[in-house]
Amino acid sequence: MAKASAKKNAFYAQSGGVTAVINASACGVIETARQHKDKIGKVYAGRNGIIGALTEDLIDTSKESAKAIAALRHTPSGAFGSCRYKLKSLEANRREYERLIEVFAAHNIGYFFYNGGGDSADTCLKVSQLSNSLGYPLQAIHVPKTVDNDLPITDNCPGFGSVAKYIAISTREASFDVASMCKTSTKIFVLEVMGRHAGWIAAAGGMAASEDCDLPILILFPEVPFNEESFLKAVQEKVDKYGYCSVVVSEGVHDKDGKFLADQGLKDAFGHAQLGGVAPVIANMIRSKLGHKYHWAVADYLQRAARHIASKSDVEQAYAMGKAAVKMALAGKNSVMPTIERTSNKPYRWKVGEANLSKVANVEKMMPASFITKDGYGITKKCREYLGPLMQGEDYPPYGKDGLPKYVQLKNVAVKKKLDSDFEVK
Amino acid sequence: MAKASAKKNAFYAQSGGVTAVINASACGVIETARQHKDKIGKVYAGRNGIIGALTEDLIDTSKESAKAIAALRHTPSGAFGSCRYKLKSLEANRREYERLIEVFAAHNIGYFFYNGGGDSADTCLKVSQLSNSLGYPLQAIHVPKTVDNDLPITDNCPGFGSVAKYIAISTREASFDVASMCKTSTKIFVLEVMGRHAGWIAAAGGMAASEDCDLPILILFPEVPFNEESFLKAVQEKVDKYGYCSVVVSEGVHDKDGKFLADQGLKDAFGHAQLGGVAPVIANMIRSKLGHKYHWAVADYLQRAARHIASKSDVEQAYAMGKAAVKMALAGKNSVMPTIERTSNKPYRWKVGEANLSKVANVEKMMPASFITKDGYGITKKCREYLGPLMQGEDYPPYGKDGLPKYVQLKNVAVKKKLDSDFEVK
Repeated sequence: MAKASAKKNAFYAQSGGVTAVINASACGVIETARQHKDKIGKVYAGRNGIIGALTEDLIDTSKESAKAIAALRHTPSGAFGSCRYKLKSLEANRREYERLIEVFAAHNIGYFFYNGGGDSADTCLKVSQLSNSLGYPLQAIHVPKTVDNDLPITDNCPGFGSVAKYIAISTREASFDVASMCKTSTKIFVLEVMGRHAGWIAAAGGMAASEDCDLPILILFPEVPFNEESFLKAVQEKVDKYGYCSVVVSEGVHDKDGKFLADQGLKDAFGHAQLGGVAPVIANMIRSKLGHKYHWAVADYLQRAARHIASKSDVEQAYAMGKAAVKMALAGKNSVMPTIERTSNKPYRWKVGEANLSKVANVEKMMPASFITKDGYGITKKCREYLGPLMQGEDYPPYGKDGLPKYVQLKNVAVKKKLDSDFEVK
Repeated sequence: MAKASAKKNAFYAQSGGVTAVINASACGVIETARQHKDKIGKVYAGRNGIIGALTEDLIDTSKESAKAIAALRHTPSGAFGSCRYKLKSLEANRREYERLIEVFAAHNIGYFFYNGGGDSADTCLKVSQLSNSLGYPLQAIHVPKTVDNDLPITDNCPGFGSVAKYIAISTREASFDVASMCKTSTKIFVLEVMGRHAGWIAAAGGMAASEDCDLPILILFPEVPFNEESFLKAVQEKVDKYGYCSVVVSEGVHDKDGKFLADQGLKDAFGHAQLGGVAPVIANMIRSKLGHKYHWAVADYLQRAARHIASKSDVEQAYAMGKAAVKMALAGKNSVMPTIERTSNKPYRWKVGEANLSKVANVEKMMPASFITKDGYGITKKCREYLGPLMQGEDYPPYGKDGLPKYVQLKNVAVKKKLDSDFEVK
């Protein structure tokens, strides 16, 4: 029975902000693991990410039907719950790592799949070192995910392509709208998008205009210090030429002193500080200085949850990353992350690569300067060539008779606890 | 040659806020007119709505290819430009009506198709009376359009079904997102939607939850005076039960004294009044009183321009209204509007009806009380049965290789002016 005892269970967790396709990665992990039942026992998911591991709150994914798992591929958000929780270093909080090992040992877990961004890669790296540091045999593989597209080495991150597609389409649609209205009414449309440090998502707004679709769009990147005078001049130039202007603004836009534009010291009638978005700030600035009527929108969660218009490239890559992670685990690897390697732009071709986690953790990939036009308000041809393929193709979810997409809500049956100790997550 | 001289040209204009499907109505008008070249000459569109008629700025739609006109069916916004401009009464501004007749006479226009909402129906009614009042033979037909769904007689308004679908899907997607995050982070998601007087669009947010998709959603209708205490209690109940809560708030929500919640007297650091949306007001209220972390979004133009996820029912009806308007004109009718008559809920069946414009103009259809749950925060089964069919089916636009929908930008060739007088629109 040596073979049976060598069979280990797997742990899978979702971490950080969720995306339209992180569940496609979960689908890739679980379906691939199910194809290798000789090597991998059950896949246990952490309820609410790594917190589920620390509190021994595990979900038995084997209780879900093949149909339900397949439906994860077209369901946005994190089906098992995510969390914003970063493990401290082994030195700073050894107790957490010892607890993880207690839980993993109790449930015969030998594979650790962690689905997240930069912070999660760091956590995954630390967990991958447990074999050596604490003597528990574990293979830790990171599955890349982030709408921010800021992981290094991989050409792009699953989750980003779908946000990019959503923002580009929304910007195109809203620009058509304001073009219709500008003669007597709205001349300015401002769309606020995610991206506190990197302007990848804002850049996608620039894709709304193309060779065969002429639209006046200005982008405000967090990489470019905001200059009111230059910006207002650019807006007026667009209005003069087109009659209107669309502005795509990253939430992280700041001035040369690093002060966020969103932080305008707004106070309510009672003098309490109010948090608004950066979109109304930009819109009000344009109206007060240039006199143009405006509309503004804040996409917020809508952009990263918009599975209804997910990019086909993105869905395929998210699934492929999950699948590759399991294959890497089966090949005996540890402390690695599958990556996307672009091999051709036209036609778009890519393959699965591999990165060592030590080279991924705590490295943030910013927009290259060559992707932003000289005036600071647009994207270059090089940027278009990079973004285009990531937004390619549609991957529509199935719809019910009520006109709504059929997203799956899993049963998420808890695994019976084996430890009699509780663990307080701080 | 009596027959040839009897052939009149048609005028078509788009009015008020545009929608995802108003161009589908334009497509219906133009394609149907092209099928009856024996009776209808050219279709001239008003550039920027009725202003185009007043300033003799007409667009010759015969210069557009059949392919371009067909593409209007899947292109959001107003392809010829719209305007917010309401004609005064004949008594108050006779000069405007005389000018319209001058322009129409100069271009042999005998048919007037006006595509808009309540205000536009009023304008169309006035124009339809010109035959009698000023002796110019003209048949005026109104083509219904409004995301607000507030026109009387017709079961629903083209434009609304697609916004409803977009808001329901977005609410479902964002609710899945916050459900994933609520353990350690965001517990509240607030989505602000259009609807200053009627809560039809907000109601659509309630469709996000269904029998097979359990989600905690609260709706704030303009029809229900806002009560902070009761609302916060309802929010906390959802958070207690589900761990999170989504709120769909209409921009027109106000308290029992009629004060808009969006109008909170916000001032910037310099003491200038700032206009924010109602979403951040609700979100801040929840955080300050209940302590929950939040995210909020303002959909704004994104919701009414979202052709990428338009409802199939809506697209079909928008087209059918345009087509029916032309058929009515050919049948010699004047001062009417085609309507949508629902004949069955399950399966959804509808037919084209007809309303007299005098019964449409200046009548606003509000949400019936029977559509709102007793607590004021939800929709009833009756409301669901009404809304469901309007959101049914998907009607995807074609996409390019760049992952973006192919929306048409027309050439919009101007008709040569025949009058030597200018007209100033005030």
